[in-house]
Amino acid sequence: MDSEVNNGNSMRALPGHFYAVGVGPGSSDLLTVRAVNLVRSADVVIAPRSRKADTSLALQTVKDLLDGQEIIDHVYAMRRDAESTVRSWARVAELVGRRCERGQSVVQITIGDPLIYSTSCYLLSQLRESLPNDRVHVVPGISAFQASACLFDEALTIQEDRMTLMSATNLVRVEEALDHCETLVLYKAGKKIAELADLLSRRGLLDRARVVCYAEQPDRQFVSADLREAANARHGYMVTVLVHVGRQAWQPGEAGSE
Amino acid sequence: MDSEVNNGNSMRALPGHFYAVGVGPGSSDLLTVRAVNLVRSADVVIAPRSRKADTSLALQTVKDLLDGQEIIDHVYAMRRDAESTVRSWARVAELVGRRCERGQSVVQITIGDPLIYSTSCYLLSQLRESLPNDRVHVVPGISAFQASACLFDEALTIQEDRMTLMSATNLVRVEEALDHCETLVLYKAGKKIAELADLLSRRGLLDRARVVCYAEQPDRQFVSADLREAANARHGYMVTVLVHVGRQAWQPGEAGSE
Repeated sequence: MDSEVNNGNSMRALPGHFYAVGVGPGSSDLLTVRAVNLVRSADVVIAPRSRKADTSLALQTVKDLLDGQEIIDHVYAMRRDAESTVRSWARVAELVGRRCERGQSVVQITIGDPLIYSTSCYLLSQLRESLPNDRVHVVPGISAFQASACLFDEALTIQEDRMTLMSATNLVRVEEALDHCETLVLYKAGKKIAELADLLSRRGLLDRARVVCYAEQPDRQFVSADLREAANARHGYMVTVLVHVGRQAWQPGEAGSE
Repeated sequence: MDSEVNNGNSMRALPGHFYAVGVGPGSSDLLTVRAVNLVRSADVVIAPRSRKADTSLALQTVKDLLDGQEIIDHVYAMRRDAESTVRSWARVAELVGRRCERGQSVVQITIGDPLIYSTSCYLLSQLRESLPNDRVHVVPGISAFQASACLFDEALTIQEDRMTLMSATNLVRVEEALDHCETLVLYKAGKKIAELADLLSRRGLLDRARVVCYAEQPDRQFVSADLREAANARHGYMVTVLVHVGRQAWQPGEAGSE
């Protein structure tokens, strides 16, 4: 099927519609123009915030765009428990359904991209049951790995490179991934930096790693090409490690185009 | 090191500085605010265009932002030949160096993200020799896989999922990748859709694939959850295939946070 593309700069949040909107890593000018327009024109803005956080980072990022929208601060537990996560977002899905039935437009803002390790995914899967498909929209956002790579000006992928993105939770799986990609991006690496440094050192890749904490977040961005230095500092949850494992060049004479 | 973050909406292109700017997949409202501000305020805008294309898609995407900037149309051959690619960009790097020395601001626009399969990577690596590091900047952009995933509202990654991004050039490598990730994203899949359909069918994954051609490009976006249907249509170069191979859930009782 051929499908419609928004061809302009004026997409407004429509009555009865829901939008999961990525607001990028934290700097207010890394929102897309579409995200700006939707947040500005929404009746209701849902901002997720973990129980540990005083303020929602997503809300902080869009604060200059708020002017009378109803703000719903959804506090969720930072727990690796799928059932309680689903239950918590079921309540939000009901609320979104009610507001949309009433003819309001609802935007859920989320740090980064709504489809990459984001709470939006839980909300979206539950909204499938309460809202027609054509009233649910997702707007991409700059993910932390993109902002982090830009701080080093180094390609994530060229030619035939493969890039793998995963969390740094399980270092056995991380080591396995090193054998199957040219660039490895690790999220949620905060607690594992020292162990990661050992692993990469053993593999001869320690000098190919880069660390960025809180990429593009005002007042707290930390950037280092030295994993051991980064391990000695105390960093929180939003830590991205980029590992440039190698390159996979074009094969001479191969057909195709770049 | 702690590093500075641009905390506001007013980043302008500075005299003597170079910016590699991602303009997203093709819709003018998927530029970031930072990209808009830089393109608007640049003295010189370099727009890459393949020899086969009549117009630069990147230039088309920013046309409403152009008002007196010098436009340099860099035509390059779409060849999988690293040497001629490097030579072609060496000439652009020299030109950028001269303009920056003269005190002009130069922005290179590029479709998608400048560090993901982008010509910016060649230019950036050559600029390292002619411009001081602190005069070279990279601004992330929405990559086609992000825009494509948004058209289906399906998570790319949740919990412990791994996502791998690669080109669809070599199907042996594609099949290998299926064993090492939960979401596989294939770029440059235009010529391989029928073979990919066979491979995925054999692996029981045909109904887990999604195809998007020209994501977010006005008048030519094509979206399908049926790879065989997509194979019968004729699509060009900018084809993204998403394969939802599986899910890797949190392990019960695992520590950590989400």
